[in-house]
Amino acid sequence: MPLGRDYDRQDCALARALEVVGERWTLLVLRDCFFGVRRFADLRAHLDIPRAVLSDRLATLVDAGILERRPYASGRDEYVLTDTGLDLWPAVFTLARWGDRHRVGPGGGRRRFRHADCPSGGADLGGGGVCPACGTLPAPASLETRTLGPEDPDDAPVPRDDAVSEALRRPHRLLTPLP
Amino acid sequence: MPLGRDYDRQDCALARALEVVGERWTLLVLRDCFFGVRRFADLRAHLDIPRAVLSDRLATLVDAGILERRPYASGRDEYVLTDTGLDLWPAVFTLARWGDRHRVGPGGGRRRFRHADCPSGGADLGGGGVCPACGTLPAPASLETRTLGPEDPDDAPVPRDDAVSEALRRPHRLLTPLP
Repeated sequence: MPLGRDYDRQDCALARALEVVGERWTLLVLRDCFFGVRRFADLRAHLDIPRAVLSDRLATLVDAGILERRPYASGRDEYVLTDTGLDLWPAVFTLARWGDRHRVGPGGGRRRFRHADCPSGGADLGGGGVCPACGTLPAPASLETRTLGPEDPDDAPVPRDDAVSEALRRPHRLLTPLP
Repeated sequence: MPLGRDYDRQDCALARALEVVGERWTLLVLRDCFFGVRRFADLRAHLDIPRAVLSDRLATLVDAGILERRPYASGRDEYVLTDTGLDLWPAVFTLARWGDRHRVGPGGGRRRFRHADCPSGGADLGGGGVCPACGTLPAPASLETRTLGPEDPDDAPVPRDDAVSEALRRPHRLLTPLP
């Protein structure tokens, strides 16, 4: 359903943002891009969505200047966040933080983002994506992410065993391509 | 389309957040709630969406503990953000800020949020929803919002003339019910 024929009279920045990133799956594609996933096959394996849906979402993100296609091997492209895309980090982080606080998953596992390049020693990001140690809003490239297991290991769901899921369970720097 | 049958194995807070607030229109309903819109008829007039869609989105938000129904007149309810709902403010703000920066609307009008209760004099919120004057992440109730007109008034689109749109064009405190 379109966002309303009066969109051009609403003068609303949130509506304009959602017209690009509000489609089902789009923010999860972007999350994976921040995590360092760059290739179509890896995105598809990790997100487990139909090929046509992923193609459509990637094309929309490239058209909107959020992702850039870059050739990496004969005939293959990878998808890399542009500056406009990187600027979506606070939105991805704040939505994920809300989910972490209010929609706890089965097993209760959580993900943290630490300011690895912090001049004051670093800390896990707090509200708004601010580093509590230095008080700045770190760029995603200066963050390391890790997962915290559930408090009771018996509650842990069966982990996904695709290569991307396994790579994302290890601590790693954001935007760094997965091994 | 559901977010994938492997959702319970993804252990992803962003996916869990989007299962509640990722539906088309839902974040715009929440935006209006932050602006002080509380009544079904006002939400419907301002969002210009079908009655059934709005009913469905409001029911989902009440079920998820994000909105609370409160009676305000014989047989009528209003919808008020709970603490869980108020905690979505950074996500709404950061998405809207990105739209303001990267998806400029026709006419170029913009909305600003100022920390009205700031002990350091207040300023328009910056990245992550932080007040540049005092360095804190203000609660929405301490913010005043206003619209900036386009640089060239001739570029301004025809403004919407419903009562909610007119009220939202005047500076006002977030969460305060519209007159």
